[in-house]
Amino acid sequence: MSGLLAISAGDPAGIGPEIIGKSWQARDEHGLTPFFAIGDPRAFAGVWSGPIAVIDTPSDAPAHFATALPVLPVIDSGVVVPGQPDLDGARCALQALEMGVGLARAGTACAIVTGPISKIQLQKVGFNFPGQTEFIAEACGVARQNVAMLLAGPSLRVVPITVHIGIAQVPAALSIDLIVNRARAAAKGMARNFGIESPRLAISGLNPHAGEQGSMGSEEAEIIIPAIDQLRAEGFDVAGPLPADTMFHAAARARYDVALCQYHDQALIPVKALHFDDAVNMTLGLPIVRTSPDHGTAFDIAGKDRASPSSMIAAIRMASAAWQHRKTYEG
Amino acid sequence: MSGLLAISAGDPAGIGPEIIGKSWQARDEHGLTPFFAIGDPRAFAGVWSGPIAVIDTPSDAPAHFATALPVLPVIDSGVVVPGQPDLDGARCALQALEMGVGLARAGTACAIVTGPISKIQLQKVGFNFPGQTEFIAEACGVARQNVAMLLAGPSLRVVPITVHIGIAQVPAALSIDLIVNRARAAAKGMARNFGIESPRLAISGLNPHAGEQGSMGSEEAEIIIPAIDQLRAEGFDVAGPLPADTMFHAAARARYDVALCQYHDQALIPVKALHFDDAVNMTLGLPIVRTSPDHGTAFDIAGKDRASPSSMIAAIRMASAAWQHRKTYEG
Repeated sequence: MSGLLAISAGDPAGIGPEIIGKSWQARDEHGLTPFFAIGDPRAFAGVWSGPIAVIDTPSDAPAHFATALPVLPVIDSGVVVPGQPDLDGARCALQALEMGVGLARAGTACAIVTGPISKIQLQKVGFNFPGQTEFIAEACGVARQNVAMLLAGPSLRVVPITVHIGIAQVPAALSIDLIVNRARAAAKGMARNFGIESPRLAISGLNPHAGEQGSMGSEEAEIIIPAIDQLRAEGFDVAGPLPADTMFHAAARARYDVALCQYHDQALIPVKALHFDDAVNMTLGLPIVRTSPDHGTAFDIAGKDRASPSSMIAAIRMASAAWQHRKTYEG
Repeated sequence: MSGLLAISAGDPAGIGPEIIGKSWQARDEHGLTPFFAIGDPRAFAGVWSGPIAVIDTPSDAPAHFATALPVLPVIDSGVVVPGQPDLDGARCALQALEMGVGLARAGTACAIVTGPISKIQLQKVGFNFPGQTEFIAEACGVARQNVAMLLAGPSLRVVPITVHIGIAQVPAALSIDLIVNRARAAAKGMARNFGIESPRLAISGLNPHAGEQGSMGSEEAEIIIPAIDQLRAEGFDVAGPLPADTMFHAAARARYDVALCQYHDQALIPVKALHFDDAVNMTLGLPIVRTSPDHGTAFDIAGKDRASPSSMIAAIRMASAAWQHRKTYEG
């Protein structure tokens, strides 16, 4: 297996091509593992003035990486107007994602970093998944409930247990099995991708003050504590249920390796408050390494040379490090 | 009206007496307005070795403040064992709170800073309120829905719209009127207490991504947006509904003066992640200035000389500043 990363460009009208180009420019400064982009070369040339090397096959990428951004082309995305997504661009983004996953599964790429896509656009061309994560899970033959979305910044890693559902649906969506499955994926993910062999897990309560002995909700007693008991019986190091408001200051964060939170904002508010520019999204529970920057297509600033590559660079670095840890972990 | 603050000591077995003593020791370093404590002098002497001046009336406090912590005594709290609350201590805490509110209402004190109490203990002696805030509102003749709990740190002020209820109860508890009332209290509170005459309000969505056009919850369309429309019609400067996960990083925080959040953890997670040691709780909508440190009794560390006075000092400073702003605002 080569140490070569595949980066799908995401929607060609978004900031994906620009931040990939800027990441290539920063390759020496950040000591980045060689990578190649997958996308329409014209989408890069339209928003970025650096050198591009169109390649026929991933194995050509390392020879070019020192002097140009290697781009493995996909179907023509038509006329790309930054900030104005269209169906051709959505097809291009989908093909790049499919190719990247395939190359990572085949071992041609050591990991896939996915650029930002527009779910609304992709759904117009037949993409029937809540997001890239679920698509990749299915492409890898892994059930959705056995993967976990990790958001990781320099001082905090969080996994939301429920993700893209309304708050009113959260209590009914929680179950002992779901919490246990996410925690297992999180724990194994810490070992495989971060080299933390006996990770310390922290699990939040659902309600204010973790329910305060049942005076503000029964989910802690009925669901979360039984899940924690089961995890402890399986040998995991778990703290909780912790009041969510007091588990994210510096001293509290030092007590765990990953926090499992009951719903989207409980997990994402602290990591984005603390690490907005350099948080990375990693999917745990997959046979491949997959990371992505923790932001969207940002159509509003696409093509204006204003997009920061910080999160993309962090995603590339985390993917490389995870691949190294996996080699050690899996021998 | 004198510039003299009253500080109720809170539960004598908690960390209140210790952090008030330590705040007095830091009076010059932080330029603190003169204050007096209300509580059992023995509770202070048991955990703090500094000088105490037992006073008969608040007007004696300024003469002592330079050389000793003035303490206005309440009923005897019995034998105080730090970390072991009892009913005598609860009665003592309640009387201190009542006296402090009365002195602030009478103008004898310019503000009240409340030390941490144990709700469980207070309820055993007949206290029938969710917390000190609701007690003070009633003592001031203000309806609960017209006050707002502000948590304020150096770079973020938040107001939870619903507070101490389970997550499952939040959607039904939200209403246009509640949001509008809290926002009015927040806006007026910014003007009166912080000197921000045309405050910029930010209101979060309830659901992930603020509902993403209704795909993850209808509360934004049915409740939050109509409330925002009403507030704008009344002349308020309001942004929202904002996705909660992207409204608390530094650049986002710079765009508003106060954030109104739909539920407890949405508001308290970011302010405690960013400002755990120096956030202050202020009650908006009262005729008096009331602040408190943003932590509890911490019975586990009481009497061990380990409690930090940072939040108490910040609460004293914020109360003083608010009193100054009110003098200007109200002429």
